Amino acid sequence: MSNKSVNAPLFLGVDGGGTKCRACLSDARGTRLGVGNSGPANANQALQQAKDNIVLAAKDALKDAGLPPSLLGELVVGLGLAGVNLPSVHRAMTEWEHPFASLHVATDLHIACLGAHGRDEGAVIIIGTGSCGYARVDGQEVMLGGHGFPLGDKASGAWMGLEVVKAVLLAHDGLGPDTALRPAVEAAVQVNGVALAEKMAKGSPRDYAQFAPMIFTAADQGDALARRILIEGAEYISALARKLLERKPGRLSILGGAAEPMRPWLDADVVAQLSVPEGTPEEGAALLARLNSELPKTGDPAAG
Amino acid sequence: MSNKSVNAPLFLGVDGGGTKCRACLSDARGTRLGVGNSGPANANQALQQAKDNIVLAAKDALKDAGLPPSLLGELVVGLGLAGVNLPSVHRAMTEWEHPFASLHVATDLHIACLGAHGRDEGAVIIIGTGSCGYARVDGQEVMLGGHGFPLGDKASGAWMGLEVVKAVLLAHDGLGPDTALRPAVEAAVQVNGVALAEKMAKGSPRDYAQFAPMIFTAADQGDALARRILIEGAEYISALARKLLERKPGRLSILGGAAEPMRPWLDADVVAQLSVPEGTPEEGAALLARLNSELPKTGDPAAG
Repeated sequence: MSNKSVNAPLFLGVDGGGTKCRACLSDARGTRLGVGNSGPANANQALQQAKDNIVLAAKDALKDAGLPPSLLGELVVGLGLAGVNLPSVHRAMTEWEHPFASLHVATDLHIACLGAHGRDEGAVIIIGTGSCGYARVDGQEVMLGGHGFPLGDKASGAWMGLEVVKAVLLAHDGLGPDTALRPAVEAAVQVNGVALAEKMAKGSPRDYAQFAPMIFTAADQGDALARRILIEGAEYISALARKLLERKPGRLSILGGAAEPMRPWLDADVVAQLSVPEGTPEEGAALLARLNSELPKTGDPAAG
Repeated sequence: MSNKSVNAPLFLGVDGGGTKCRACLSDARGTRLGVGNSGPANANQALQQAKDNIVLAAKDALKDAGLPPSLLGELVVGLGLAGVNLPSVHRAMTEWEHPFASLHVATDLHIACLGAHGRDEGAVIIIGTGSCGYARVDGQEVMLGGHGFPLGDKASGAWMGLEVVKAVLLAHDGLGPDTALRPAVEAAVQVNGVALAEKMAKGSPRDYAQFAPMIFTAADQGDALARRILIEGAEYISALARKLLERKPGRLSILGGAAEPMRPWLDADVVAQLSVPEGTPEEGAALLARLNSELPKTGDPAAG
């Protein structure tokens, strides 16, 4: 080994997401040594690319820490990955001949929860392009909501965007009240009326979520449609929060791009019970690695 | 010609739909001689299949009338085709070296309106897998609604089905009121909870529309969710009807698989202004052919 000065073992946390991977490297005492980034890790749709980007993020974090890529084999890795609850993705990950010392995989929700609370117990609600609730208490986990676009993910950016586009099209036909969001949406996609419907017909959740920021702005300016959408979305998030709090998770944090703007719309009794997140999902993934390395090796099939 | 006894010219109407073609053959006096069927005519997605099925439906109608396929070249054909308002589909149809005497193409809405009223003026609302409004007055046409799934097509079978699945998933998480439709939907697709979300995630409008009949049944039995969905859908259809009636179309008919069950949910003032449809879309297409053949040939590029 070329770097005797590093406190082995090294723990790497990776948040493998649909648009990018984020990694953070820490030593045995939890001291952060470096961070790394790479491209998407969508193991369900592009497995090899996902593996490549996980390794790239690890190398990037080693480089950021001033350490050589030859230390990959020394890393105890925690990885959070959306879709790892699918049997096919789980199998692909356990069968992966990865270049690390060991690899411990959990869902993206689990590492987000670990990161937010700095321990393996608590609850999170994520409000970004999608939405979802998660709690982990006494090693038992529950996932609520999610279900994807356009079926579920209520209060998410994609849900809000779809509600807006539907309302703009009704207004265009004179079959719904007009809204300040109509010119805003039409300007954002450079089309209006039937062309808006054509443009958004095959739209991805991300395409719809682009309208979320303008909904918060319009609501602040008193637009009735924007307020109706946010009130309905916030009602759902408040109900989701109460459902998670029933499990007595100790702490509940709301994460994701729409978490902060949604906060003023939530019921006061819910807001009073929210905890500020302590760390990021990739820090949660590093904690997953540390917690797993402390377990006895026997009976931990993922450590092999 | 082998059949001198037939009153030439022969008029064929074809309703070219996404799941099947229906054809009807009539003589110059409008007497029905035969009907025909064939497979889908989705000119936007499968142009050659669409052309083949239009010709097959024509041959089937000739056969039903006891006439030989060699008479194809004698047919003055009216064709209604979804998507023909798209420039690419329109061009493909005008460039088609079809085997008929002449071919006159219009939108599916236009032939439905022609068929429902037996003349080239009136309005229709179609409530099937999708939904849409159409009026034609003084040669000017307007289309309202539509916009496709999941953006528009409010009150359609697909819209109703999506609303139900969303509500069943909320009920499953304890985040929405329970409904008699939950066991009905779960039994229909043989899964529940998260598996229902997975199964419906990539569902087509038709997949969602399968739930529409059970919504009408549940509403009759007093289910609150089913009633809420039908009330919201019917409000939209009533508003759409009033918007079309503003144009003074003379007659307004509601067509499609959900038209009859939706009728009791519509506002009374709207129901009072509805006309019973006189004929089918394929009869409307045959009328299109007759009306076009009466026009002077000059200035009618489609007749060439």
